[in-house]
Amino acid sequence: MTARLYAAQRYTNAFRSGRLDPIRVSERCLDAIQDAENHDPSLRLFISYSGPDVQKQAEASAQRWLRGQELGPLDGVPVAIKDGFDAAGHRTTVGTALLGRQASNVDSTVVARLRRAGALILGKTNMHEVALGATGINPHAGTARNPHDLERICGGSSSGNAGAIAAGICPLAVGTDTGGSIRIPASLCGVVGLKPSYGRISTAGLMPLAWSLDHAGPMGTTVADVALLYGALAGPDDADPTTGGLPSPLLSFDPTQPVEGVRVGVDETWVRQAHDDVQRSFNTTLAALKEQGAVIQPVDIPERNHLRALGLITMLAEGATAYQEHLDASADVLGPDVRLGLEAGARLTAVQYLKAQRLRRALQEAMAELLGRVDVILTPATACTAPRIQPDALASGEVDDVVTTALTRYAFLANLTGLPALSVPGAPNDAGLPVGVQVLGRAYDEAMVLRVGAAVERASQPLQKPARVGFDVLQ
Amino acid sequence: MTARLYAAQRYTNAFRSGRLDPIRVSERCLDAIQDAENHDPSLRLFISYSGPDVQKQAEASAQRWLRGQELGPLDGVPVAIKDGFDAAGHRTTVGTALLGRQASNVDSTVVARLRRAGALILGKTNMHEVALGATGINPHAGTARNPHDLERICGGSSSGNAGAIAAGICPLAVGTDTGGSIRIPASLCGVVGLKPSYGRISTAGLMPLAWSLDHAGPMGTTVADVALLYGALAGPDDADPTTGGLPSPLLSFDPTQPVEGVRVGVDETWVRQAHDDVQRSFNTTLAALKEQGAVIQPVDIPERNHLRALGLITMLAEGATAYQEHLDASADVLGPDVRLGLEAGARLTAVQYLKAQRLRRALQEAMAELLGRVDVILTPATACTAPRIQPDALASGEVDDVVTTALTRYAFLANLTGLPALSVPGAPNDAGLPVGVQVLGRAYDEAMVLRVGAAVERASQPLQKPARVGFDVLQ
Repeated sequence: MTARLYAAQRYTNAFRSGRLDPIRVSERCLDAIQDAENHDPSLRLFISYSGPDVQKQAEASAQRWLRGQELGPLDGVPVAIKDGFDAAGHRTTVGTALLGRQASNVDSTVVARLRRAGALILGKTNMHEVALGATGINPHAGTARNPHDLERICGGSSSGNAGAIAAGICPLAVGTDTGGSIRIPASLCGVVGLKPSYGRISTAGLMPLAWSLDHAGPMGTTVADVALLYGALAGPDDADPTTGGLPSPLLSFDPTQPVEGVRVGVDETWVRQAHDDVQRSFNTTLAALKEQGAVIQPVDIPERNHLRALGLITMLAEGATAYQEHLDASADVLGPDVRLGLEAGARLTAVQYLKAQRLRRALQEAMAELLGRVDVILTPATACTAPRIQPDALASGEVDDVVTTALTRYAFLANLTGLPALSVPGAPNDAGLPVGVQVLGRAYDEAMVLRVGAAVERASQPLQKPARVGFDVLQ
Repeated sequence: MTARLYAAQRYTNAFRSGRLDPIRVSERCLDAIQDAENHDPSLRLFISYSGPDVQKQAEASAQRWLRGQELGPLDGVPVAIKDGFDAAGHRTTVGTALLGRQASNVDSTVVARLRRAGALILGKTNMHEVALGATGINPHAGTARNPHDLERICGGSSSGNAGAIAAGICPLAVGTDTGGSIRIPASLCGVVGLKPSYGRISTAGLMPLAWSLDHAGPMGTTVADVALLYGALAGPDDADPTTGGLPSPLLSFDPTQPVEGVRVGVDETWVRQAHDDVQRSFNTTLAALKEQGAVIQPVDIPERNHLRALGLITMLAEGATAYQEHLDASADVLGPDVRLGLEAGARLTAVQYLKAQRLRRALQEAMAELLGRVDVILTPATACTAPRIQPDALASGEVDDVVTTALTRYAFLANLTGLPALSVPGAPNDAGLPVGVQVLGRAYDEAMVLRVGAAVERASQPLQKPARVGFDVLQ
């Protein structure tokens, strides 16, 4: 088996060969961002970006490549940043008009680490308002549209990231995941997204939503891209105490590692809660993994029918705490779904919150035990493919609980436990829409999660390039 | 300086010399318990004990001593247990009629460890109802009376423990401390009490009150006794996940260690919030420590005026969660103060609880930083000496907020941060009532806390033996 080139490598190879330089890449990226924005309908993938800023970064990178002093495998590679992270000199909107913030004075840790690696930071991407929602339907920034079908959502909350990668604008992006916000849009847009273990990647400089569930993580074109970006972002940070004292993160990754003998747990009852097309795709992936020598074992996920309630109680209570002052001042600025959620969170009692945390601790212990018997757990990443944008979506907000339940069904488990979970594209459905597979692993064992993710990727047909809005910055 | 014999040592020396055996000790202990109970007024120190059970334990211990196969320095030494801990074959009332529990099937971990050490477990001691109160005024089990003045409380919630040690019934006891419940009665009764670092001593088999604040800990006649009991109880326990992965606990202790050069932090503004007699006693202790070579340094305790509010919000919300089912069924069984507290806890919002936890985390960080500059912090253990029992106390409950504020003023800091804190008798006040000094130290540095505690003990005049109800089991 030969390793396929991953996307970031195609950039740096082109830079190294002199066939292309970061300046040319930056121009094409800016053009692509503009084209996607001007398209009818507009894709609404970026909230803000600055052409001169991108050009300046590109010039510095081009100089480094010219002098043979490039900073590593991300130097000059375009990366998008979700608009919840601070970047010095730029405004952080968190997808809402609620905060009315000035431009930040300092970089978030993830942005600082990207700069240190020489990455080309393109701009701040669209997201579900305050990251509290799975659709990306946003009354302030507009709704990000899925490049595979412009009448469908990207999913949320890291909508713009997934859309920008799927459209070919950039190979990498940094998102956040409090209840699936990296994995859901990755699944719907056919890209790869990793929610690492809790504490793996610093959230310093990220506007918090729910401190005990919030994770920062990489998104990208392939599993190897995501592993590369993960290696650049992970590790201890004095500004985020949750990052200290953990085992060392993976720093190099071989996407051709076999999965022979790897024990893959599957909860069939849970899988059957997905839509039919998702189930069919999932079973195709499962058969392919078996063919690669993986050992499929039945498991029972504890509390699988209560995970969403546990996640919501925790997320809404902590979210209402994070946003309390702003809510008191101007809740009417919020979209109806987010406002409803935060106001419900403000009405939860401490006893309700604490009972959820008690169940959550039992869940963590049960999952640790279960992951003693299997190496990873495989589920669909979402129970459905990308839903259509409803005509009244902006006015009514994300109030269709059937849709949001399907989107988040498999998501909260990893946030409640802090376990690492990857969404990777499996076989598309009959309409050609992406279907994500979720690989969930042991605490701090991102290496195994990525290894099984790469096996899923090898087994899957590559997705068709989006017909109407596909860009290729490298051509 | 020569080491004074500590109390437990006097027992084992007597056993070793054959001057006394555990059977004789058990008889005298049972007589003393009975005498204290039958005294007018009754001291109400024990909730339950079984003469035959104590005799059986004593016979086994006597056999071991006869054969020269004693289990160590606690074999045959009488120990009292707060009635929140399970002991197989005995009922755990937690000082309330609310639970209506049957006898336990299994020992709590602390009881199991005492049995393994051969200790003579005398019985279950009186406590503030459900451990939620600082006075020990108890409508179900009656109010424990202070051996130094029978018209005064022992303090709570580990009332019976402190009273039994002060009366000379036993040299050791195991208590719990959620908001001062070991240190407050230790201070008021003139005994020593240690709330260790969070996670140091397993709380498996203890009825929880507030999981994030609950601690189990040793109480005793002297600092060396407390160190001995601490060594027998501390350390990892599979049944309590908070006990894993910590630095090793102290296992041997030399009470004569000098404190020359030890940096002792004192917050004078905070000390001035104590009653005048407590301040005078505290300053006497401080002068004595200086004479022993300790370096006194001014410090500012962060949030000192908000500690009680932070502690109460956390304790009442978690307490209402722990007792919710029982509250729903039969809240009217509770004393008025406990009922008021738990019902207030049930009405706290998740946002209120979470805001308190956010401040708490900032407090933990500030305290860790402060304890980088000093080795321990010295405060009064309570802001007042033992208050008188009010005639209407049982009917109205502990509703005198002036009294409870004075009792708990210096207590919550150690529970909120998980830092170890010792209460040790300083100079008594002019009326001969005990005054406790609190030594608070770095996380897991019980060794330093006990070392400074022993220096306070060396500097203090021994308390007068209680005139009306003092027992000496060894005579």
